[in-house]
Amino acid sequence: MTERWREEFEAERTLLNERVLASGHLGIKRFFALDEQAYQSGALPTKVKELLGLVASMVLRCDDCIAYHLIRCHEEGVTREEFQEAFNVALIVGGSIVIPHLRFAAEKLESLLEK
Amino acid sequence: MTERWREEFEAERTLLNERVLASGHLGIKRFFALDEQAYQSGALPTKVKELLGLVASMVLRCDDCIAYHLIRCHEEGVTREEFQEAFNVALIVGGSIVIPHLRFAAEKLESLLEK
Amino acid sequence: MTERWREEFEAERTLLNERVLASGHLGIKRFFALDEQAYQSGALPTKVKELLGLVASMVLRCDDCIAYHLIRCHEEGVTREEFQEAFNVALIVGGSIVIPHLRFAAEKLESLLEK
Amino acid sequence: MTERWREEFEAERTLLNERVLASGHLGIKRFFALDEQAYQSGALPTKVKELLGLVASMVLRCDDCIAYHLIRCHEEGVTREEFQEAFNVALIVGGSIVIPHLRFAAEKLESLLEK
Amino acid sequence: MTERWREEFEAERTLLNERVLASGHLGIKRFFALDEQAYQSGALPTKVKELLGLVASMVLRCDDCIAYHLIRCHEEGVTREEFQEAFNVALIVGGSIVIPHLRFAAEKLESLLEK
Amino acid sequence: MTERWREEFEAERTLLNERVLASGHLGIKRFFALDEQAYQSGALPTKVKELLGLVASMVLRCDDCIAYHLIRCHEEGVTREEFQEAFNVALIVGGSIVIPHLRFAAEKLESLLEK
Repeated sequence: MTERWREEFEAERTLLNERVLASGHLGIKRFFALDEQAYQSGALPTKVKELLGLVASMVLRCDDCIAYHLIRCHEEGVTREEFQEAFNVALIVGGSIVIPHLRFAAEKLESLLEK
Repeated sequence: MTERWREEFEAERTLLNERVLASGHLGIKRFFALDEQAYQSGALPTKVKELLGLVASMVLRCDDCIAYHLIRCHEEGVTREEFQEAFNVALIVGGSIVIPHLRFAAEKLESLLEK
Repeated sequence: MTERWREEFEAERTLLNERVLASGHLGIKRFFALDEQAYQSGALPTKVKELLGLVASMVLRCDDCIAYHLIRCHEEGVTREEFQEAFNVALIVGGSIVIPHLRFAAEKLESLLEK
Repeated sequence: MTERWREEFEAERTLLNERVLASGHLGIKRFFALDEQAYQSGALPTKVKELLGLVASMVLRCDDCIAYHLIRCHEEGVTREEFQEAFNVALIVGGSIVIPHLRFAAEKLESLLEK
Repeated sequence: MTERWREEFEAERTLLNERVLASGHLGIKRFFALDEQAYQSGALPTKVKELLGLVASMVLRCDDCIAYHLIRCHEEGVTREEFQEAFNVALIVGGSIVIPHLRFAAEKLESLLEK
Repeated sequence: MTERWREEFEAERTLLNERVLASGHLGIKRFFALDEQAYQSGALPTKVKELLGLVASMVLRCDDCIAYHLIRCHEEGVTREEFQEAFNVALIVGGSIVIPHLRFAAEKLESLLEK
């Protein structure tokens, strides 16, 4: 059961991204390509870049973006302790308004780690 | 000359933090302590945490916070190439509204690296 | 089926607006009147003003406001190509954090255009 | 029926807060303690502080935080007229992008007051 | 010396508001009237409403708005201890990104209280 | 005198953009290219797209971005009345927190129109 949200999240995300890109708008397509390239390993490894994306998503308070970067961080081997410290930075920078998103992230993280 | 902004920034910051803390409000003092602890080395090294603080400050568009984390990242040995990749993540997540802060960061970074 | 979200959205919106206005607070009522007047045709046509409202709603990341202005833009004759270009401006200004709202807008737009 | 959202909201909130705190991260625990202390009666009474929390949550557009502070304000004896005036300040400061959250708050308030 | 920033702030504000209103746009004029009315005494006293405006301005991070509501709160008799508690709520809700604005507010408050 | 801010603004902007691009980061360069293309005439004329950029900048409260789009809108022939109506949409969507930026825009607009 714990992985169902992830499968549903990823299926929905893929479907809707296809719809967005089906519009054929070149600027939007190119932005999506830049977005993907921004997290590729370079001077900073992908793991660090995904943590940057996760914390940015938490302080900007976007659950959909948090879910995406949680999954990607998990794939890159971020441990429970590293997640907690990144969550703490997001909480301190962004304040109590971040707490509902911290609850969301904590819940999704458990299901990823339980697998 | 290149270091003057940094000295002025740090003197001003210290002076005003003292004024804030002089109020004696316990909650504010404790928050400042938590803020400092959040970036201490743990499961994630300080360098990564300062990069998290930098990117969070860029997407939330706060020049004062950007200046602070730029200096701290530089002290932790973040290289020019690593800064550029972190700037790029902030730009992609936050969009063109981040560009004035990217200009600010690029200018301050040069003066830090020139020393 | 494609129009059901719109009917439900508009019924819900009407019901809740009535509840808000039933409070009888004069400041809130006057704000609602100003809000309606802001999009009336003047030096700029309503179509352009609704596009301004749509892009503002996208960069501020409010799905409810996006749904409302999508419907109004569609009523004012905004074409699929014009929508795509407005979406692109919102994406560039606001960055990847806008993407979940772009997916939402793309999905709702299809249902409006399919009718 | 009117109170069910409140019970569900509070049960969910308690459950997820426990999950967040179960992580054992000291910084997060301390932040939660500071958050609670910030609303305790002092030079300003709790009622005023909860109204500050409510309006801050409305202009930052977080429904979860709005629900929490609505309940707490209601417990502190905030009247319907006082709520309306606080809602109006939030609407004027934050603009029409706050309206979906004003609808949410108006709906939840009715169920609290109907009891 | 301590009052000069206030005089300059108020002169600049008056001058620019006149320029904004000189445009003759009816919607803008009416919004300015609603903005003024929102803080008039009603079910909630002006002092509480100005504190609401101050905390909203701090979490939204607008120094100009903070300066205005600081002056108005001071005129309404808000004490140093009450200011500190309101600052603390803003800091907890909004996080460390609010700190530069807390420094600004603390500095301006001293000059208001020194008179 | 009235045009000096514009010359200084454009010189500073060009200088700092060059510094940003001198970093040679490909993602940043490509983003700058997408940003420029987003406002080129297509299904929507450049004038409308620049108005979208202006209102987005006002609700996101970035003076630097406001200055840039004001100049571009003026070059595209936006009239004083059209500017006022766009300002009004931004004020209604974004609320009184936008007012300091409305004052900034009104002041800069006068100097552009006086030429």
